[in-house]
Amino acid sequence: MTDENARHAEKMKKIKAARDRMMETKTEEKGLIMVHTGPGKGKSSSGFGMIMRCIAHGMPSAVVQFIKGNWDTGEKTFLRERFADEVRFFVSGEGFTWEVQDREKDIAAAKRGWEIAKEQILDPEIAFVLLDEINIALRYDYLDIDEVVEFLLYQKPRMTHVCLTGRNAKPELIEAADLVTEYTLVKHPFRDGVKAQKGVEF
Amino acid sequence: MTDENARHAEKMKKIKAARDRMMETKTEEKGLIMVHTGPGKGKSSSGFGMIMRCIAHGMPSAVVQFIKGNWDTGEKTFLRERFADEVRFFVSGEGFTWEVQDREKDIAAAKRGWEIAKEQILDPEIAFVLLDEINIALRYDYLDIDEVVEFLLYQKPRMTHVCLTGRNAKPELIEAADLVTEYTLVKHPFRDGVKAQKGVEF
Repeated sequence: MTDENARHAEKMKKIKAARDRMMETKTEEKGLIMVHTGPGKGKSSSGFGMIMRCIAHGMPSAVVQFIKGNWDTGEKTFLRERFADEVRFFVSGEGFTWEVQDREKDIAAAKRGWEIAKEQILDPEIAFVLLDEINIALRYDYLDIDEVVEFLLYQKPRMTHVCLTGRNAKPELIEAADLVTEYTLVKHPFRDGVKAQKGVEF
Repeated sequence: MTDENARHAEKMKKIKAARDRMMETKTEEKGLIMVHTGPGKGKSSSGFGMIMRCIAHGMPSAVVQFIKGNWDTGEKTFLRERFADEVRFFVSGEGFTWEVQDREKDIAAAKRGWEIAKEQILDPEIAFVLLDEINIALRYDYLDIDEVVEFLLYQKPRMTHVCLTGRNAKPELIEAADLVTEYTLVKHPFRDGVKAQKGVEF
């Protein structure tokens, strides 16, 4: 082995030892409150990637879409047509809020979505619930942030995972969450005149 | 309608008009070079969420996993068992690099992965290629960044999408990409002693 390779092996060994020590302390399992927020792309995609993992592990899951209701998104078609037994898929929103321009209708849709969300989270058969774009409904105060946070902290079954997506997550939600990822936009093709494309954006 | 609702409708109308104007300028379709980087969670999940969208739209895709090879990940099982016709799934890495501690073996695995990646990207049947954790191989110079960037810029078929994931993306790759998202860790449950859990982390 060359010197460089020997140094590499030594360095990797140290990293492995440090990682093994760290992992030994990670013994607890519990349902997580996860938040995907920020202006970057991928917040919903990543939530749906976890839904795919749940299907793979035989963990029943539920999705409540709060905003993208009118879009015929790839995920919705795919999950409804092919995984109706594994994933319960609900849509409460009726399109992005600027398509509707009716605040009372938006509020009613958000509240219906939240009622469904609570039922699914409380259902002992369900291991993972994705509340897609709920942060938009919270941001416009269509839903009461205190009620949502209190439910997640005190009524969510201990082992149930809940993932909440959408930009501008409220500080109360970030405070309550176990895992928060901020998606930051470094570069976006819209700036160069490229439109939303299937497979990527929907 | 109350005053508040009227103001809301007016504001939403303006947003919709601005958005419609913006979308009119977005007319181009092209295959994107996408990068998911940063220390936050969800970089691979989001890539696999796009794979799910491709399946939903009938767009054939390919995955090359550069690093997580030895992990029996949910995605791999799911895609290989249930979507072998829609998604080609390759594994080149043999586990996280600190598990192996053999630089020459790692380099050989990375190079094998890159050969497969090029074949898949050049294949006219394939619309989307996910190069999962390739940034790790680039970071340690297991692969030559200039070669990878030149291939993506000059040999990738125009309509093919390629998504490259992994932390510490090289500046050359960020410069070449159309869409770059930085995943920032705001909060992680490992800090509180919670271990990696199925459905969420793998």
